Amino acid sequence: MSLKTQSKSSVIETDTIEAWVKWLASYGQSDTGGVNRPLYSSAWIQAQKALKERMDYLGFTTHYDSIGNLFGRVQGSDQDGTTVLTGSHIDTVLDGGMYDGVYGIIASLIATHNLYHKYGTPRKSIEVVSLCEEEGSRFPITFWGSGNITGKYSLTDGVNKRDIDGTELLDAMKIAGFDPENYTSPKRKDLDCFIELHVEQGIVLERTGKSLGIVSHIVGQRRFTVKVSGESNHAGTTPMPYRKDAMHISSQLITELTEKTKKYDPDLVATVGQLTARPNVPNVIAGEVVFTLDVRHHQEETLRTFCKDLAHLFQKKAKDHSVHITMEPWLSIKPVEMDAALTYTSEQAAAESNIAYKTLYSGAGHDAQLFGNFCPTALLFVPSKDGISHSPKEFTTKEDLQAGVDVLTALLYKLAY
Amino acid sequence: MSLKTQSKSSVIETDTIEAWVKWLASYGQSDTGGVNRPLYSSAWIQAQKALKERMDYLGFTTHYDSIGNLFGRVQGSDQDGTTVLTGSHIDTVLDGGMYDGVYGIIASLIATHNLYHKYGTPRKSIEVVSLCEEEGSRFPITFWGSGNITGKYSLTDGVNKRDIDGTELLDAMKIAGFDPENYTSPKRKDLDCFIELHVEQGIVLERTGKSLGIVSHIVGQRRFTVKVSGESNHAGTTPMPYRKDAMHISSQLITELTEKTKKYDPDLVATVGQLTARPNVPNVIAGEVVFTLDVRHHQEETLRTFCKDLAHLFQKKAKDHSVHITMEPWLSIKPVEMDAALTYTSEQAAAESNIAYKTLYSGAGHDAQLFGNFCPTALLFVPSKDGISHSPKEFTTKEDLQAGVDVLTALLYKLAY
Repeated sequence: MSLKTQSKSSVIETDTIEAWVKWLASYGQSDTGGVNRPLYSSAWIQAQKALKERMDYLGFTTHYDSIGNLFGRVQGSDQDGTTVLTGSHIDTVLDGGMYDGVYGIIASLIATHNLYHKYGTPRKSIEVVSLCEEEGSRFPITFWGSGNITGKYSLTDGVNKRDIDGTELLDAMKIAGFDPENYTSPKRKDLDCFIELHVEQGIVLERTGKSLGIVSHIVGQRRFTVKVSGESNHAGTTPMPYRKDAMHISSQLITELTEKTKKYDPDLVATVGQLTARPNVPNVIAGEVVFTLDVRHHQEETLRTFCKDLAHLFQKKAKDHSVHITMEPWLSIKPVEMDAALTYTSEQAAAESNIAYKTLYSGAGHDAQLFGNFCPTALLFVPSKDGISHSPKEFTTKEDLQAGVDVLTALLYKLAY
Repeated sequence: MSLKTQSKSSVIETDTIEAWVKWLASYGQSDTGGVNRPLYSSAWIQAQKALKERMDYLGFTTHYDSIGNLFGRVQGSDQDGTTVLTGSHIDTVLDGGMYDGVYGIIASLIATHNLYHKYGTPRKSIEVVSLCEEEGSRFPITFWGSGNITGKYSLTDGVNKRDIDGTELLDAMKIAGFDPENYTSPKRKDLDCFIELHVEQGIVLERTGKSLGIVSHIVGQRRFTVKVSGESNHAGTTPMPYRKDAMHISSQLITELTEKTKKYDPDLVATVGQLTARPNVPNVIAGEVVFTLDVRHHQEETLRTFCKDLAHLFQKKAKDHSVHITMEPWLSIKPVEMDAALTYTSEQAAAESNIAYKTLYSGAGHDAQLFGNFCPTALLFVPSKDGISHSPKEFTTKEDLQAGVDVLTALLYKLAY
């Protein structure tokens, strides 16, 4: 195998990282500067094609699996046939940022290229992966790429998953060149480990002044819909003691649950992001308020006991105010622990690269979540400016982009050479 | 003048009150059992016409003023030319109840008829009025009827007030038979007093077991739009201490302002009826929350100091959380005190009629509010079942309807005979 490069030097330099991120962002770029590249869209097809061409040009052995995950392989010398897989996802949310997902692919490509250029054939095979889908922004399914590789999903899970225009996932897949008729399971049996580098999408690294985050756990999530059924009444003619004001009671619940969250555990987060009141007019006491509750923590037991405590709080409040309060669960995802040995090796790689790092939890979901239940997995973060992501404003400095590549390079060296 | 009646006996009996309320409800009745009779609509035209015919039949001297207020007069023997005016409004809200407004007209008609039947010509002239508009349900103006009689409004106030279809108030008025070209001011100079009987639209009478309310004040109102500008962020990746969660801060404000209201003054009410969060999705911390605040009390000074205290609370909270909070006033109505002598006479009339009464405040606006600043005014209430009004479910028992007519009859006797 030979690796060619577009840069004058064979080692790809700092400026190239950002340039390549921008180059991929050009596939699906919107007027606002955001990126729209949902699964199997024409922008998605073009981006995977361009990426494959670049991998081919650099000398990687490339192939798609039967759902459109793209792999660029450097064959190792070991005869055990195991593979170090590294990469992230190519799809974006609607009007998303240009770093989310793509940075991890580009970084993996550059790190692997540079390692080969410097050290030649690795001991273990390395594959760079551009996962076809993670965001769930087109079809009502997430992790279609990593889900197929890890055996969580197979073809039947794509049945009757339709986008907003009514197109079925499997039909879109066929149009993109991956005919379901030719499906063979993308599940991998040869993976030694999976390494994902991603932008943080949070503000912890920025606030703590670190260039790298090493994720110990991806948090579990619980989501609920809470409904407070009080009594709608005239805002002028109903004295305060006679009211069953769903807005006031909901405000108490939100205030108390937020305060409780802060005291319960420093790593626990709880969010009421959506609230709808009825009838929602200025001069009528709200008869009903419905709000969502999103709770996240890295320990299943903490999630369980906290949510149980909240249910008690809600029932006590319902009794105190003689109203009806329901708390309907609609999402439950268990926490996933990253591999302890890989996390330790990542810390060594960071220290040797003189990159200031912080061990943290990932509050957002990532492909590493599915790999974490399948094979040893590491997840690394670089900072996101102001914690912003899923927005055209998403930004990471060149220095931080380089820091991520440096640590990833050092880590892959330790794992594959 | 001669008074005829449709009942066999010349005195109109209890059952007739409800029957006449239902008869007027037939003009504009909806499929849900509610009533739609906005100003100058065809249902409104028919209702006023039918009422005029009934007044004529009963022997009242009838006339419309130039905006469509309908009057039925019994001439008194006194030469001073002053008039006791009694009645309420004929218009309804969208899908309103059948008692709101109409009951006061029917009760005035029956009370005046019965008095004439029993005692003959009164000393003072009595006029029953069917006010053309109070609710503001068609055009963006309220109290068009009482506003013109009391001189608050004149023709020019109807200019450029358009309904949802773009029809201007003055054009609708012309179509209903009241050509603005023929406008002469409906302002009255002969009013001795105004007496309004109305359903309570609240739950105080029902809760206290009284059949009659005698209103001492119509409360003043202040309305505000409060905007909390925090920071929208990822619900999973933003630790609690780093958040500027507009939903949490708004919940604290609503909780604290409600508790403050309860402690401040037992007659004070404050309501947050409408709330909108942005972006209002489950997994994103709300960056902005906008809510309305409606504050009512019968003393201007209490309204002033309470709202000032709230503004301080909001500014303190803004500082504590390093967010921006604005409180924009958009409605300010001063309290109106009913006439003390008329209130006293009303109490006597109730006592003599053996009707259990309660002195209270009106938390809702009424035509009596405009008359209260113009001439001695009394406002009387009968109970509303469950406090419900502006709904097809609006209901008052026959016994309470009769109690209201009895007290009104006794009061008009004291005032006009």
